[in-house]
Amino acid sequence: MDFSFSIQSQEQRARAGRVATPHGCFDTPAFMPVGTNAAVKAMTPEEVKETGAQILLCNAYHLYLRPGQELVRDMGGLHKFMNWPAPILTDSGGFQVYSLAPLRKIDDGGVTFRSHIDGTEQRFTPESVMQLESDLGADIIMCFDECTPYPVTREYAERSIALTSRWAERCRRAHARKDQALFAIVQGGVFQDLREQSARELIDLDFPGYAVGGLMVGEKKELTWPICQAVTDILPWEKPRYLMGVGTPEDFLNGIANGIDMFDCVIPTRLARNSHLLTWSGRVSVKQAQYREDKRPPDENCQCYCCRNYTRAYLRHLFQAGEILASRLATIHNLTFFQDFMKRCRREIAQGTFYEFRRQWFQQQGE
Amino acid sequence: MDFSFSIQSQEQRARAGRVATPHGCFDTPAFMPVGTNAAVKAMTPEEVKETGAQILLCNAYHLYLRPGQELVRDMGGLHKFMNWPAPILTDSGGFQVYSLAPLRKIDDGGVTFRSHIDGTEQRFTPESVMQLESDLGADIIMCFDECTPYPVTREYAERSIALTSRWAERCRRAHARKDQALFAIVQGGVFQDLREQSARELIDLDFPGYAVGGLMVGEKKELTWPICQAVTDILPWEKPRYLMGVGTPEDFLNGIANGIDMFDCVIPTRLARNSHLLTWSGRVSVKQAQYREDKRPPDENCQCYCCRNYTRAYLRHLFQAGEILASRLATIHNLTFFQDFMKRCRREIAQGTFYEFRRQWFQQQGE
Repeated sequence: MDFSFSIQSQEQRARAGRVATPHGCFDTPAFMPVGTNAAVKAMTPEEVKETGAQILLCNAYHLYLRPGQELVRDMGGLHKFMNWPAPILTDSGGFQVYSLAPLRKIDDGGVTFRSHIDGTEQRFTPESVMQLESDLGADIIMCFDECTPYPVTREYAERSIALTSRWAERCRRAHARKDQALFAIVQGGVFQDLREQSARELIDLDFPGYAVGGLMVGEKKELTWPICQAVTDILPWEKPRYLMGVGTPEDFLNGIANGIDMFDCVIPTRLARNSHLLTWSGRVSVKQAQYREDKRPPDENCQCYCCRNYTRAYLRHLFQAGEILASRLATIHNLTFFQDFMKRCRREIAQGTFYEFRRQWFQQQGE
Repeated sequence: MDFSFSIQSQEQRARAGRVATPHGCFDTPAFMPVGTNAAVKAMTPEEVKETGAQILLCNAYHLYLRPGQELVRDMGGLHKFMNWPAPILTDSGGFQVYSLAPLRKIDDGGVTFRSHIDGTEQRFTPESVMQLESDLGADIIMCFDECTPYPVTREYAERSIALTSRWAERCRRAHARKDQALFAIVQGGVFQDLREQSARELIDLDFPGYAVGGLMVGEKKELTWPICQAVTDILPWEKPRYLMGVGTPEDFLNGIANGIDMFDCVIPTRLARNSHLLTWSGRVSVKQAQYREDKRPPDENCQCYCCRNYTRAYLRHLFQAGEILASRLATIHNLTFFQDFMKRCRREIAQGTFYEFRRQWFQQQGE
């Protein structure tokens, strides 16, 4: 097993550490840019690395539909196919089946659904998803789960976590490649006791890492963090915890404060393509008329390629003209900002000042 | 005057040389990538440079409409605005007014037209275009001309070249920035004697360089090259000649064989975004099913970033998935191929084997 996690410093519930995988290490808390179709949108792998990213996420569901798992396998696996030699995590498709696929039908064996691309009928089972993620060849792979919808009845959520636990056990049995670390996903909707039950059942199966899934799917944020904390309080301290599909800098601060080590989200790349830049002094929606003659870089505190070389006025012009370069430069900036933010969190934890940094950040946001 | 042209080798009508400008030199025969909106589509300036490009072209008409000449001037001129420190040429808008703008009305003073973006009425005169190109700040700027349409009557073409000559004289008088070299544009449609007359009138005005405009606008290719040759036979040997808006590798071979030194065209960037790669062994339309599992790079004889790192199978997948990276990688390749092709032409001229190379190329294409 080439996978390990070491915690290097901690402050209350927050931890800073390092995960080792067959394709190298990454520091935690970590933000993983999303490479849905085996490419981070608008970026080359070298540019993604330049932002400071050490691991990225690819979507098993999307790659299953296009170009297909056999092709990726025959091309030497994801790392080689997409020219990214560093760590990769693949999700299991559980969330995409829930959020994208029409006519989804769940039974105890698996899920039958229609492709959102061409409408063809497809089926995922725990075993087929393990084969899929094996063919893709990521360093960290996720169990196939049911992403409990929101809102649901308590009865539904009970059945759902039981299913996710049975599927996790089947995934563990079907998991063949020992160079891939298999993480389990805690579900349970907004029911704290069900979340705890889900976590305990998965802990009994002894995975090298655990994810919290099915949060931030529509529930009020007041519900999110208590549930997250209830789960991380139970999860083994020495194993990495991954909060799936999250989020914003504020979400990172709350997640880290609740013991989360890994995050992924399309927010920085999607906002960038829509001309929204996240900076240390707030959001810059660079298409706005106020930036027409603005000679400043997007963020004066940023050392990314975009901020070193271009003005807000030029970026605004590129967005107005519909130039691809606009999306590229904005994506470079946003991903760099997210990585810089994570670096800052790691440093604050090491210094024992993370909770103070968090307090100040929220105070500044509230101003 | 910081502008000079030196011919370093020649073979019959073909010449290899070097042009010096205030922002550096470029070798001829030269291919200028097109940066319509102050950006070569999908590329950063560093990537454009990496393809081997030494000069690029920007469109005065587009920049006049958006973001406006005052803004570019206030941002320090085109070089600084777009982060391209090397030579730039701006066209005069004559061709775009002809090809893009609706409700065009030409009088002796200038052209009144409507913006193709928002329909507002605009007017170009030789004097206003000189101010426009002065504000943009390129190293080589073009006279405002009438691009004679095709087909036209001989009478129309006669009036048109007279107008272009009068405008050229007004441009020369209005041309204020001595750090910008002003080129004149020979027109005259497909009438060889009118082309010769246009060339002679412009030569009398003594410009540092001359362009051949209004070719490849719909006329048969059998007409194109005899007219090009008739013009270049008259143009002063010691000054650079620029064939505007051309073209393909075959066009370069014919243009160079007729004494042309500079070319620009959107073909390599536009074809790239439509998934067509130009290679030393022909066109690879990489979206085709035959490339689905093709592990070869787009061009095995190419050393560009795309060909060094990616397979045709991956490119095909990116195009299928609509990823921006697809356009980027294909553009890097096509622009590199065009620059490599020009380098090859320069080497063949230096060796005195250009016409033989040209013969072999056409023979290979005919196979």
